[in-house]
Amino acid sequence: MTAQTDAAGALRHLLTLDGMPRAQFTALLDRAQHFAEGHDARGALAGIAVCTLFFEPSTRTRMSFTLAAQRLGADVLSFDASSSSTSKGETARDTLKNLEAMGVRGFIVRHKQDGAVAELAAAANPGTALLNAGDGRSNHPTQGLLDMLTLRQAKGADFSRLKVAIVGDVKHSRVARSDLHALRTLGVGEGQSIDIRVCGPASLLPDDGTLAGCTVTHDLDAALEGVDVAMMLRLQRERMEEGLVASLDDYHRDYGLTAARLRRAASDAVVMHPGPMNRGVEITDEVADGPQSLILTQVRNGVAARMAVLEALLAG
Amino acid sequence: MTAQTDAAGALRHLLTLDGMPRAQFTALLDRAQHFAEGHDARGALAGIAVCTLFFEPSTRTRMSFTLAAQRLGADVLSFDASSSSTSKGETARDTLKNLEAMGVRGFIVRHKQDGAVAELAAAANPGTALLNAGDGRSNHPTQGLLDMLTLRQAKGADFSRLKVAIVGDVKHSRVARSDLHALRTLGVGEGQSIDIRVCGPASLLPDDGTLAGCTVTHDLDAALEGVDVAMMLRLQRERMEEGLVASLDDYHRDYGLTAARLRRAASDAVVMHPGPMNRGVEITDEVADGPQSLILTQVRNGVAARMAVLEALLAG
Amino acid sequence: MTAQTDAAGALRHLLTLDGMPRAQFTALLDRAQHFAEGHDARGALAGIAVCTLFFEPSTRTRMSFTLAAQRLGADVLSFDASSSSTSKGETARDTLKNLEAMGVRGFIVRHKQDGAVAELAAAANPGTALLNAGDGRSNHPTQGLLDMLTLRQAKGADFSRLKVAIVGDVKHSRVARSDLHALRTLGVGEGQSIDIRVCGPASLLPDDGTLAGCTVTHDLDAALEGVDVAMMLRLQRERMEEGLVASLDDYHRDYGLTAARLRRAASDAVVMHPGPMNRGVEITDEVADGPQSLILTQVRNGVAARMAVLEALLAG
Repeated sequence: MTAQTDAAGALRHLLTLDGMPRAQFTALLDRAQHFAEGHDARGALAGIAVCTLFFEPSTRTRMSFTLAAQRLGADVLSFDASSSSTSKGETARDTLKNLEAMGVRGFIVRHKQDGAVAELAAAANPGTALLNAGDGRSNHPTQGLLDMLTLRQAKGADFSRLKVAIVGDVKHSRVARSDLHALRTLGVGEGQSIDIRVCGPASLLPDDGTLAGCTVTHDLDAALEGVDVAMMLRLQRERMEEGLVASLDDYHRDYGLTAARLRRAASDAVVMHPGPMNRGVEITDEVADGPQSLILTQVRNGVAARMAVLEALLAG
Repeated sequence: MTAQTDAAGALRHLLTLDGMPRAQFTALLDRAQHFAEGHDARGALAGIAVCTLFFEPSTRTRMSFTLAAQRLGADVLSFDASSSSTSKGETARDTLKNLEAMGVRGFIVRHKQDGAVAELAAAANPGTALLNAGDGRSNHPTQGLLDMLTLRQAKGADFSRLKVAIVGDVKHSRVARSDLHALRTLGVGEGQSIDIRVCGPASLLPDDGTLAGCTVTHDLDAALEGVDVAMMLRLQRERMEEGLVASLDDYHRDYGLTAARLRRAASDAVVMHPGPMNRGVEITDEVADGPQSLILTQVRNGVAARMAVLEALLAG
Repeated sequence: MTAQTDAAGALRHLLTLDGMPRAQFTALLDRAQHFAEGHDARGALAGIAVCTLFFEPSTRTRMSFTLAAQRLGADVLSFDASSSSTSKGETARDTLKNLEAMGVRGFIVRHKQDGAVAELAAAANPGTALLNAGDGRSNHPTQGLLDMLTLRQAKGADFSRLKVAIVGDVKHSRVARSDLHALRTLGVGEGQSIDIRVCGPASLLPDDGTLAGCTVTHDLDAALEGVDVAMMLRLQRERMEEGLVASLDDYHRDYGLTAARLRRAASDAVVMHPGPMNRGVEITDEVADGPQSLILTQVRNGVAARMAVLEALLAG
């Protein structure tokens, strides 16, 4: 029993991929693959109300979850927590408890504070499920799932022989952390384990244990050498104001993925990015829209991965 | 025939609980009770479009009505009247007539002006129903209904022997007015009638006849003595700026419900609050989250009460 | 094959009415008439996701499309492009491609730039349909359709003998342009063609070929003489700030439709306005709400016309 499982080990919430058993992870991926192949399951959540509860705005992620819930037949509501009772001084917990009392069974929650979603989950009734749609810089588990689904489709189920580069602002990235959780779980094979290189300016790399087991470098060419996958991260423009990055031009020169640089990777390497992209900063148009890019496939898989999670937590 | 009934006395709109015949009230409560027990009626409003039309924002109330309408199978739309054509100079009446022409059959309307919803109802076509979701300080009839449903579940159907305290800013409260309308109708028994005490600072009590028949006091301890129900009201923080309340601390000291004070009430007394709460101001955490609190039950019943009204006005 | 049709001439997108073949136009009107008579087709778009994607806000038009899509059974999403990723620097094209990857099949797009919707359509996948809900001052094709539907109901299918006045700010009006496209296509009969008079202050009339074939006048009385239809346009208040109109009072005096002026038209003339109206500016209450007004009929027909287009582009 963890914060997200019941006594029998079944998923009650999805808060993190950290520590998720491999079998549970694989079952979600298998089901997501089914949905990615175009299947709907309109009866699965018929009559069940789910609510997006975003304390930090993100239209894209909200849309992806909404489409997933609709394809499962749920009633979907959207609660914009920045412009509502919360501004009248109501706590997030009161908002949750109120919506729960109104009959909402599933909550898709984004919050800017680390741990806020797990804290809310601890206050939920039995029968209520929370899906972490991103908390602070800690977790974005459905992004981890969709990235693994995308990677599995492209490179097969054995991740242990893969070479992966994760490039950019890992320090502030919940996407990177969830991908690392996932890659560590799925990347272990017989006498072999995944080669993960993390690359970015020192100011944007964490020194808190996040990168344990990874090769850390500030040299993008070295990081890309022979990799099967380049996972590029979004550069938040705020990082410049904070003095963590000198300029977008400098960042692009040192850490931007160009077609020339991509040639250092394996010839069949794939490129991923969680979006929205800063074109011309962390990635060029040529790469983003090129034949090795899986960026729109990630978006497509996002709906499928979220369907799998919603179904696992709320159906039946 | 009143503003809200047709020639045969059937409900066409729900504008106020003032003057609603007891039989009509009880029929709505009976049906709300049915829905509160978890029944849906997905076919009742299938193919019928209802629209929340809020000229004053309230996410919570909007969500409650939306969930109610979904459980009846309606198509639900949300028209945020503060950020739309109304800002292009369109009148509320034109907005209504336009949405009506588009095929919307039910309107859930909130407006900051007293009487604005009734005025709109007068402009509606036959076949169109308006539900007042709060107008000015005058009416919030579905709140009155859900409060009575909650009270009936807790204390039985005979309200005539109840002692009820209503505490706080009654002057500006449409909740209090709708509860008073309801309690007066339902609180009459054989040779007996309900004991209603109203308590708050003089600056927050109305002197317009609203409190006719109530015992008025500024002493919370006296008001709570032996009551079966304490209905606490939200203190709008604006009241301080208006000079009607000295400070939140003073208000809490004089009119905040604490566990100690609640002991003056009957031992099985229940506590109600329409939300959102100012915790630590009109009510402490201990009381709000304590065993006598029905606050989340009110929220739960809100959906059921709104289902009953939507069905009564729009189905069949 | 045009920007909006496939090789076989079938509609893939609806971008403009300019150049639409008469048979295609008439087929849409016939189907819209069917829906205007109250028929639903809940199965037509079942399981299909459509999204309103408005880079310029318009609650009314968004509601009309939403109601239309619901009556066809679609899953409807709303993407408010002004408050989302686009503000994080994402391009409109990336937004479209992302939503498309998420499974959205139909896009209802409004944009303040001329040609922006056609540009997006050029980037869409096969199987994706774009509906122009207004781009710049160029096109608002569903408004043109609904206006023609309204006119056909009132005056019959032969438009060639009609006299039509279009009054107001034609220069900035996509409504006027779409109506002109439509009237030119439908207004040709045997040895006869429609008489279109365009009237407004010189500062608000275009000199770019838009008015080819129309009679242009600055004298409203002359324009209205004997007409069967007066199509009034909304005056944007911004026009005063831009110095294109001296004052609302002057505008009303010279170009406002009053009951007195309407008597210059044919006795069975009808009045149209795309809304939202500036009552007392381009039109008086007496006319707007009078027996010759078809303004709410236009609104009603808007849903039917949009159903016809959505079905034509997305069903089957």
